Amino acid sequence: MTAEADIERWDLDADVVVIGAGCAGFSAAIGAAEAGADVIVLERTGGWGGASSQSGGLIYLGGGTALQQACGIHDTPEAMAAFLRAATGPGANDEKIEIYCEGSVAHYDWLVECGVPFKAELFTEPGWEPPGDEGLMFCGGEAAHPFREIAAPAPRGHVPQMRDKRTGERGGGWMLMHHLASTVERHGVDLRFDTAVRSLVVGAGGDVVGVIARHMGEDVSVRARHGVVLASGGFVQNVDMLAQHAPQLEGWAKIGTDGDDGLSIRLAQGLGAAVVHMNAGESAISVDPGLLVRGILVDRQGQRFINEDSYPGRVGQKVLNERQGESFLLLDEEAYDEDAARRFGLRLSWVCETVEELETDMGLPAGSLQATVETYNRHAANGEDPLFHKSERWLRPLEGAIGAIDLRLGMYTFATFTLGGLDTTIDGEVRHVDGSTVPGLFAAGRTTSGIPAVGYVSGTSLGDGTFFGRRAGAAAAGSPRSV
Amino acid sequence: MTAEADIERWDLDADVVVIGAGCAGFSAAIGAAEAGADVIVLERTGGWGGASSQSGGLIYLGGGTALQQACGIHDTPEAMAAFLRAATGPGANDEKIEIYCEGSVAHYDWLVECGVPFKAELFTEPGWEPPGDEGLMFCGGEAAHPFREIAAPAPRGHVPQMRDKRTGERGGGWMLMHHLASTVERHGVDLRFDTAVRSLVVGAGGDVVGVIARHMGEDVSVRARHGVVLASGGFVQNVDMLAQHAPQLEGWAKIGTDGDDGLSIRLAQGLGAAVVHMNAGESAISVDPGLLVRGILVDRQGQRFINEDSYPGRVGQKVLNERQGESFLLLDEEAYDEDAARRFGLRLSWVCETVEELETDMGLPAGSLQATVETYNRHAANGEDPLFHKSERWLRPLEGAIGAIDLRLGMYTFATFTLGGLDTTIDGEVRHVDGSTVPGLFAAGRTTSGIPAVGYVSGTSLGDGTFFGRRAGAAAAGSPRSV
Repeated sequence: MTAEADIERWDLDADVVVIGAGCAGFSAAIGAAEAGADVIVLERTGGWGGASSQSGGLIYLGGGTALQQACGIHDTPEAMAAFLRAATGPGANDEKIEIYCEGSVAHYDWLVECGVPFKAELFTEPGWEPPGDEGLMFCGGEAAHPFREIAAPAPRGHVPQMRDKRTGERGGGWMLMHHLASTVERHGVDLRFDTAVRSLVVGAGGDVVGVIARHMGEDVSVRARHGVVLASGGFVQNVDMLAQHAPQLEGWAKIGTDGDDGLSIRLAQGLGAAVVHMNAGESAISVDPGLLVRGILVDRQGQRFINEDSYPGRVGQKVLNERQGESFLLLDEEAYDEDAARRFGLRLSWVCETVEELETDMGLPAGSLQATVETYNRHAANGEDPLFHKSERWLRPLEGAIGAIDLRLGMYTFATFTLGGLDTTIDGEVRHVDGSTVPGLFAAGRTTSGIPAVGYVSGTSLGDGTFFGRRAGAAAAGSPRSV
Repeated sequence: MTAEADIERWDLDADVVVIGAGCAGFSAAIGAAEAGADVIVLERTGGWGGASSQSGGLIYLGGGTALQQACGIHDTPEAMAAFLRAATGPGANDEKIEIYCEGSVAHYDWLVECGVPFKAELFTEPGWEPPGDEGLMFCGGEAAHPFREIAAPAPRGHVPQMRDKRTGERGGGWMLMHHLASTVERHGVDLRFDTAVRSLVVGAGGDVVGVIARHMGEDVSVRARHGVVLASGGFVQNVDMLAQHAPQLEGWAKIGTDGDDGLSIRLAQGLGAAVVHMNAGESAISVDPGLLVRGILVDRQGQRFINEDSYPGRVGQKVLNERQGESFLLLDEEAYDEDAARRFGLRLSWVCETVEELETDMGLPAGSLQATVETYNRHAANGEDPLFHKSERWLRPLEGAIGAIDLRLGMYTFATFTLGGLDTTIDGEVRHVDGSTVPGLFAAGRTTSGIPAVGYVSGTSLGDGTFFGRRAGAAAAGSPRSV
C-alpha cells in the first residue's frame, strides 16, 4: 500500500482504473465506459486475453436466453438458480446466484451487443466442449443425479461461435475475448500492456485513489478518480498461496497465465479485505465425458464413488479431493472408443478376458472389482443404478472382454484453477473484514469468490467474470469522486 | 482499528497484553512473565478456561518425554515429526512441526513445572480419552495405516491427571487450566474478566500499541508497551465466517465458547494479516473408538471407506467431508458392546439374521452390503484387509446375527471446531499478506493455523496452544518498545 501523500505526481489518470485484460477486466472496462467513465486498463502481459482467452469459451447463462429459445429450450431463472445453489455449494453465494440468474437473459443480449456470436444449435452429447461450432450444450451435469431431482434440467453452456474447431481455428474463449476487445476499443478505453500493478494508493480517509504499476522498469502512478477494479485472475500460479489455502491443487496442470499469482487478492487483503472459500478449486479430469458415461469409474479399492454421467469437473473434484487423485475407468468393447480416448491422450492400460483377471492385473484386492462389476451389471440390466443413480440412458451391463484406462496420468490428470478470492458485493465492492466496504475498491472474476463458490460448473467463471465485471465497472464509475 | 492519535488517555498499561484466558492465552501470559514482562490478560467471559477447560485435556507431546520414558515408551522427535507431517496435511506447517517436536520434551517439563500432574500409566485401548486417570495414550492413529508405515508409532497423548473420571470429577482440560491459572497468578499477572476486546490500537508507524476493550458497558483503553497476543480461540461460533470458509462445519455440535467468534482473526485481518487453511475443521464423530475398530463402517452405498482403526477424528472428517455425514457401523454379537454404545448414546438400529436382510432393512442397494461383508470377511479370515489395511489385531470375520448402528444422530453426529486462522511465525508474530510481520502483534492457539493444519490429531490443539502460546508471550515481551 502506498499513501496518497507520498505520490509526488500522477503519471496517468482516469475515472476508473481496471487491473487485468481478461473477461472480467474487459467487462468492467465496458461497464464503466457505458456509465460514462473514461477508463484505463492495465495489463501485465503484452496482450489481452488472460486465461479467458485460453478457455473453451463456455458461458453459463440461462433462464430463457434468446439462444435457448432459438434452440427450443425452456428454462427459468428459478430452475437455473436452484441448480447453481446445489452445484456450487456447500457455501454457495445465494445473493450473487439470484441476481446472476435474474439478469442472465439480459446479459446474453449484452454479449451479443458486444458482437459475440452464438450459433443456434444444440449439442446434446456429453462433452467438455462442442466438437464443432454448436452454440448451446449441457455443461454442469444438470440432467444427472442429484441435480435432475433438484431443478428442471436445461442446457446453459453458451459457446461463442468460432470457425469449426475441427479445422484448427481458435476456440470460443478467444472468440469471446476478441469481441470484448473490439468493444473496449470502440469505447475508447486506454489499454496499457506490459504494465504490472504492484501497489494500491490509499487516501487519508482510507479510500483507494489509484495504483502504482511497473512499466519497462519504471514506476507509473495512475490516479483513479472514481474507483479501481481488480480483475487479474486467481492464484493458481502462486505456490505459497496454494500451500496455505488449497494444497490439493499443487502439482497438477494449471489453467492460468503467470498473472494468476494472487497479487490483487493480497493487495486488497493488505487493506483489510475479506476473502472467501480460499480452499476451493476446479480440477477438471482429463477424460472424454462421452467415454466416462459409458464405463464404470472405480477408485483404488475397486469401488465406484460417483455416477459416471456427472459433470466431469465434479468427478475431477471428487477424485482429487477424496481419492488422492487416483481413479480407473472400466470399459468393455462396446463402450470403448479409441478416437475418444486418443483425443485425451488415453489408451486402455489393461485388457482382460474376465473381471477377475483384470482385478489381478490392476493389483486390486481379490474380489473387490468383481463385486463392483457384478453389482453394477445386475442393476444395470434392469436399467437401475441404486448406488449412484446414473441415468438409464447410460446403463448397460459391461460384458465380454474388459479393459481399464489408468487415469493416473501424472500432472495432466487434472487441470486446475482457484475459485477462492475476495469477498465482494453484487456490485463488485470489496468487503472489509469489519463488514464495511473498502471505498474506491472493486473486484471481479477469479480475483473474487463468485458463482463457482466451491463446486464448479463449466461456464460459471467466464459467466460471473463478465456479469459481475460489468457491474463492478458500472459501480466504480458511479463511486463518489475521490479527489 | 483505532489510531493511537485518537486515544485520549490509557486506562491500563502493561508490557504485554494478552487476549483470552484459555490455554494459549495463559501460556502466553506465563511466557511473557518468565521473560520479565508485566502482563495483563483480558478475558471476555467471567472466568478463565475457555474451550481448553471443557476439553479432555490431551496434549500431544513426544520425542521421549519424561512421561513416555516412565511408561517405557521409546520415541524420537523425528518419528513424531514424520507422523505429524503426514497426519495434519495436506498443507502441514513443516516449520512449526519441526520446532514443536524438537521442543516437545522440554515443553512437557515446563507443564510439569507449572504444576500440571501426569500419572505414569499407559492406556493401550482405542479411545477418545482414558477411562480413568492414566496419563499416556495413543490418540492419533499412530499405529494404524497409513501412519504405521510412515513413522514408528508411539503414544503421545499426555493427559493431565484428574481424580478418576469414573467418580465424576472434572476432566483433564480443566486440570490443565487450573494449574496454568495458578502459575499465571503466581507470576502476578493482572487478569481482567468480563473485558471484551473490540479494537486494536495502531501507532503512526503501523505498529500495534494496545487495545480497546469493553468492560461493564464502558470502553477501556489498554496500552501494550511491547506487544499484544491474540489468543481468543477460533470461529466455530461465527455463522457468517463458517459460511464463507468452512460451510461443512455448520449445523453440527460446536466445541467452543461464545468467544470462538473469530473476532481476533478479523481484527488482525483488518491490519492486513494473512490467514491460512480457513476451511479446515475438526469433526469428531460420536462413536466409541473401541466399538469402531471391531466393526465394519460403511457409507450409504454400503461400501467401506476407511480402516476402522483410524483415529476417529480422521474418520469423522472423512464421513463429514466426503460422505455428507452419513455412516453406519456393522457389528456382530461378539463385536457389539452395549455399555460402550450407551456411553455415546448409541444402540443397534437394526439387528438381522443375515447380511441380506440387514441390507434390505437398511434400505441399501441389493447386493451392495453383501459384497462388502463378503469381501471383508474373506480377507479378515486370513488376517488381511487389502482394501484399507486395518490392523490384524482387529480383523475377524463378522458372523451370525448382525446389527448396525445408524451413526446419523443429527447435530450430535459430529463435534466440531475450526482449525484455520492467522498465519504466524514460530514465535507467534502475525504475518502480513505482504510477507512482513505486523509489528507488535502476536497470536497463538486456534486464533492461528498451527500444528493441526488441515488434518487433526487429538491433543495438537492444547499442544500447540500451550507451546506456541508460551513462545508468543516471550517474543512479545522481547518486542521493541513501542513508546
